[in-house]
Formats: sequence, structure tokens, C-alpha cells
Amino acid sequence: MKIMVQKFGGSSVENPERIKRVAERVVSCRKKGWSMVVVVSALGDTTDELIELASQITDNPPAREMDMLLSTGEQISVALLAMAIQELGYDAISLTGAQVGIMTDKSHTKAKIIDIGASRIKKELEKGRVVIVAGFQGVTEDQDITTLGRGGSDLTAVALAKAVSADTCEIYTDVEGIYTTDPRIVPQARKLKAITYDEMLEMASLGAQVMQARSIEVAKKFDIPLHVRSSFSFNEGTLILKEADIMEDFVISGVTLNKNEAKITVCDVPDKPGIAAKIFKEVSKTGVNVDTIVQNVSRKGYTDLSFTVPLADLNKARSLTEKIARSIEAGGILEDKEIARVSIVGVGMKTHPGVAANMFEALADKKINISMITTSEISISCIIEKKNAEKAVRAVHAKFGFGK
Amino acid sequence: MKIMVQKFGGSSVENPERIKRVAERVVSCRKKGWSMVVVVSALGDTTDELIELASQITDNPPAREMDMLLSTGEQISVALLAMAIQELGYDAISLTGAQVGIMTDKSHTKAKIIDIGASRIKKELEKGRVVIVAGFQGVTEDQDITTLGRGGSDLTAVALAKAVSADTCEIYTDVEGIYTTDPRIVPQARKLKAITYDEMLEMASLGAQVMQARSIEVAKKFDIPLHVRSSFSFNEGTLILKEADIMEDFVISGVTLNKNEAKITVCDVPDKPGIAAKIFKEVSKTGVNVDTIVQNVSRKGYTDLSFTVPLADLNKARSLTEKIARSIEAGGILEDKEIARVSIVGVGMKTHPGVAANMFEALADKKINISMITTSEISISCIIEKKNAEKAVRAVHAKFGFGK
Repeated sequence: MKIMVQKFGGSSVENPERIKRVAERVVSCRKKGWSMVVVVSALGDTTDELIELASQITDNPPAREMDMLLSTGEQISVALLAMAIQELGYDAISLTGAQVGIMTDKSHTKAKIIDIGASRIKKELEKGRVVIVAGFQGVTEDQDITTLGRGGSDLTAVALAKAVSADTCEIYTDVEGIYTTDPRIVPQARKLKAITYDEMLEMASLGAQVMQARSIEVAKKFDIPLHVRSSFSFNEGTLILKEADIMEDFVISGVTLNKNEAKITVCDVPDKPGIAAKIFKEVSKTGVNVDTIVQNVSRKGYTDLSFTVPLADLNKARSLTEKIARSIEAGGILEDKEIARVSIVGVGMKTHPGVAANMFEALADKKINISMITTSEISISCIIEKKNAEKAVRAVHAKFGFGK
Repeated sequence: MKIMVQKFGGSSVENPERIKRVAERVVSCRKKGWSMVVVVSALGDTTDELIELASQITDNPPAREMDMLLSTGEQISVALLAMAIQELGYDAISLTGAQVGIMTDKSHTKAKIIDIGASRIKKELEKGRVVIVAGFQGVTEDQDITTLGRGGSDLTAVALAKAVSADTCEIYTDVEGIYTTDPRIVPQARKLKAITYDEMLEMASLGAQVMQARSIEVAKKFDIPLHVRSSFSFNEGTLILKEADIMEDFVISGVTLNKNEAKITVCDVPDKPGIAAKIFKEVSKTGVNVDTIVQNVSRKGYTDLSFTVPLADLNKARSLTEKIARSIEAGGILEDKEIARVSIVGVGMKTHPGVAANMFEALADKKINISMITTSEISISCIIEKKNAEKAVRAVHAKFGFGK
């Protein structure tokens, strides 16, 4: 029994027409002999509508009740898709996370999967049924409903692929696959045939929003090949694989852009050991995710310390930093919302020297100033002025030969 | 621990504003020391919207998937109400039918409750929590979600009242209680202080739509006093009790009207034994609910046979009856959609003679012709022309002294 897991996102099941199209696609695979497990997200904007309903009741919805509320979105989708498949003459059954036995911890709204009981799914597959599973949700040992956080349906699909030992796992979305960069910025952007888990993880953390990072981590851990493709066409998408399985040898795989960060600078910090640790320990306690950190050269026993935070956390981070700045007798605080992060990602840079220099040169050619730089083993990021963001992406993308 | 069960219908939780008002009412009882179990229906038109969604997928939605779909409506309500109560500073927890352990048979869309596990509810009540339970739904031993049919939330409330040995059970609706007749037809209609289970059952079957009949049967069986009242006021509503607990002694309790029936007449039926049995056995096989049956005096070996069916089933019943009429060589078929049923209900008629004569006299005084009559131990129904329906209700209502 060859098993295929398919996952369809909210835009793929936005309305009854699209649900019917998904049903046809599922049935076409079933006809080819695949045993099908299908994971579905909530219809279109359902989740946002439910959040809006809750916000009219309270500003601080209790997490357990939020999960009770939001999990209905996927339950509606799976019931409708099961109906649509049965309408095509194929047997199908919908299952909630609880019915499948997707056991999670008790961290409501961001629960972690502890275990998946595959017995119910296998029983239904043996009956020849298409099994439709509600994404994004699980259940605690007390039978309380949990959700897995934004993008959690990807995680459901990957975890199920592992649990049922699926032969393939397809992630359907509203784009054709993973591109070398955002095609809305660079029309010459190319769809990648394949990308490694690590590159995909790096791209996700740098702003590419195709797949949830945790689900890629799980796929990597269990070596589950993913196929990211569009539910609106039958074109091949992009495979996400381990490095050894990729034949092509590109230096870099993509250029990403993130305009949702802001920079905070603490000026004239007394240059003593332990000051940086103090600042970032306090900030991390608030749950704010600090990214790039740069400490400038000291002058006369003082230094400037800059770091970036998500725009959404700026107010929280600034007021905390102001408090710390006073306590350590720093000169003051500056904030800059007009920044952008341009990054290149690629496992090739581990073996190809000069990649960083090429990137800096591309920006210099366009007279774009770099205010901060960070690197990881397979990525290089430059913080620049927001107004130059798109120009920078185009320049870097062309520099690495993608434009041809 | 004094336990109160409250049930709120869809109109009581139509939007966030109304949900907040329900929360305040629940909390006001909690403050008085009651342990609260609250059963909620789906928000306003949610159920109809979900049915509409399914109809865009298929004309014949599979019953199991329909239950999976519809049960989300109540799940949304309970989560929102739990949030609203917590917002008021009181601990609350929402539970689905499955989480409570409302075990049913496998008759999807019209499941029967087999057993209710009260342990989870009792555990939560002991923690001082308000327990909010999704009405209308249960779960099979295979953990498949079922629904209890239209009005099923009433049944959930009554069954829970029994399971937790509640001291009182309040059914909140959008009217002030049970009236002697429809106040939209007769402005002088009076709210009843109390009514017996049997009268309420009779009124429900004759067209009054305040409560689902099965839930009244269960309340009667376990002697659970019900209090039907409005969620839009704090006035006392109507108690539904066993006969012995009612102090007042009215001859009749109410006048009901049903305009959703049609009459079928089979003309010139050969007057032989077994013909009526043949007709009604065939009709009953189709699930059509035949009501009043009248057979006219025979002439020359032939008879006319009339019966009423719900308007919604008229086409099905007529085509079947036409077939039977041919097979028994009857003269032909007539149908009449312009009929109405006016009924009086009251346990008092068991001990007060002359009630039927009074009703007929009221109609005769208004020159309203009666085409069919049926009686039960505590009700009398007259089938009349639809155009006289409201006039008839007013005349009968006045005749029994309610108008004063």
C-alpha cells in the first residue's frame, strides 16, 4: 500500500468550488492506486473571522477556549472535503485531531505534538477510504483540544507522513513552489527544482513565508521529502530534500527580503564587561526575539550597541531598553523603523569562497549603504535602508546569475 | 452543592453582545451560590449557513459528515461563552458533547442518547467552574460525532439535568414562556404560570414550537421540572411540571394553530375491509407522518377517505396515494393545501364535560365550517379552511375565557 499525504492550505479550500477542485485532485491520485491521507486548513479567512469574534468578547481570550474556538475552522473543511470526495463516488471519512489521536502537550495555541496514534487512519485506509484529517489541531491526554500555532497544518501533514510511513508528502499552496526570490519584486525569479531542508529553514527564518519552520525541522529530522506545489496548476513544484539528494549545484538558492524589523540603538554605553548580557537577558525575558546585534568600535570608554527586533515588538522592546539604558547610565536610545533585511541563502557558500564579497559588491554598485551584517553557515544578511529594499534584492539576484 | 442547568437557544447567543448578556445572567446565578451547567445552541443562523455550505458541495450530504460539520456551530458558542464568563472574573470551561461523554447510538443527524458520563462535569463543578456544554451533539463509541436533530439542545439540557441530578433546569428562549395561544394572532393571549408535561407534549405536536417534544418526554420520564423563560427579560416564565404539582385548575391550557398541513382525499374507494390499512401502511413506509384520518359514510358500496400530511411531504404522499388509488380501483385523488388545524389542549377536559361542544359552538358562531375533527385524551383538533385560521383561533380563545 503506497501512501501519499497531501496538505491543502486555506486558499486552496476557500469556497465550495475550490473544495470540489481539491476533491478532484485527491481522487485522481486515488485512481492511480495511492492510499490517500489529506490534511486541510480552515476555509480561507475563517480563522481570522473567529479571532475577530473572540476579540468582540474579550481582549485577552483564554488560550484553552481560543483553541476550542479555532479548531472548528478545520473541522468544517474536513467535513466539506469528505462530502465532495463522496460526491465523486469515492469513499472518504473526515477526522478531527482528537479522533486521529494527535496527542500534544498542554501549551494551548502553540502546542507541541507528543505522539500520533496511526491506528484509526490505517484502519480507514485499509477499508479503501480517503482519510481527511483536520490540520493545525491536536488533543491533550485530558481530551482538551489544542492548536499547533500558525502554519500548524504543515506540521500535521509532516507528522502524519512520519506516523503512517508515507511514501510522499505534498504541500499544496497558492504559489508554484519555492522561488529564488519574491517574483513580485523580481519578475525573473526562477522556481527551484529542489532545495535542502537547511536552506528552506534559513529562508523561512529570513522572511520567506511558504512553509512553517517547525514542519521543515520535523521533515528534516525524519528525512521526509516534501513537494511544495500549487493547487491551481498541475506543474511540478519544488522538492525539499536532504543535501545529499540534490543533484544540482548552485552557489546560492535564494534571495530573501524582510521589511518587518526595526533597529534599536543604545548610544554611549559604558564599555564594561557584562553590559550586553544584561540588556539582552532582560529583553529576552519579555519574549521579544532579538536578531542581528552589532556593537560598534568603542571610543573613550563608550560604545554604541544596535540590534533589530520584529516591528510588532518594537514598542515593548524600546520601553524596556529605555529602562535598562537609564540603569546602566547609557547616553540614550535611538530607533529606526526604516530598515530592511536582504539575505542570500545557499548551502553552496560553504564550499564557494567570495560569496559575501559578491553580495557586498552588488549593493555597492547600486550605491546602497550597509548598516549591519550578519552571517550564518549558509546565509548572509545585510541591513539596509528600507527605501532601497527592492533595488537591493534585484541587484543581488542578478549578481548571482539568476536573472539569465 | 445546588446545581442549576440553563439552556440558551440560538437567538439568545446570536452575536457577541448577546453572548455577554448571557454571561452576566449565568454569573448572577453563580454569585447566588448555584453550581452552573450551561447548554448553548449555535449562534443565530450558523447552522443554516453550514447547511447552505454543504448544499453547494452536494445535494445528498452523507449524514456522518453533516454531523461533523454542524457540530462546529455549538463548539463556537461554548468557547465564546466561556470567554465571556472568564472576562467577568469567573472560572469557566467549555466542553463538547464528546468531552462530556454524551454517548449516542450511530443514527447520524438524529442520534439517540444512550448514556451520559457526568464525571467530567462534576469534576469541573467541584473546582468551582461554570461548565459550558455544547448542545445538540454527542459521540458514538467509535468517537464519531453525532447530532440529536433539530431542537436537540433542549434534549442535551434535560438529559444533563438528569445526569448531574440538577435541582432546576431553565430553558431560555426568545419568548417569555408558554402562552395560551400565539400572541401574534391574539394580543390578549396570556402567559401560563405552569403547564403539565402532557399538555406541553400535545401542544408541541400540534404546532407550538417552543420546545422539542423528545426533551419534554425525557423531562416527564425523570420528573425534571422545567422553567421556560426569556433571555431578554428577568420575568418568570412558565413551569412545565407533572399534573400533581400544578395548583391552578384550568379547563384548557392553550389554543394552537398549524397551517403547515395539507389534506388528501381518495374518492370513491370500494368499501371493503383492509383498504384503509393498505393505504396507510404504504404511506407510512415512506416516512410521511399521516395525521387526522376521516372516512365518510359509505354510499352504494363506496366511501371517501381523507387524511392530512405535512405540507412538505405532500408531493411524496400524493404520488404514492395516486398509485395505490389505481391499484384498488378508487375513483380518484383530491388535494387541498388551503387547510388549517385549530386545536385546544388541556388536562382539564378529562374532568370537564362539554369542552368539545364549546369549541364547535365558537366556530359555528363565526360561521366557520369544520371539515375534520380529531380528539385525544387532552386535545381536540378541528381542520378548517386556512383563510379562517386566525379568526377561528381568536374565537376559540375568547370562548374559553382567556380574553378576559
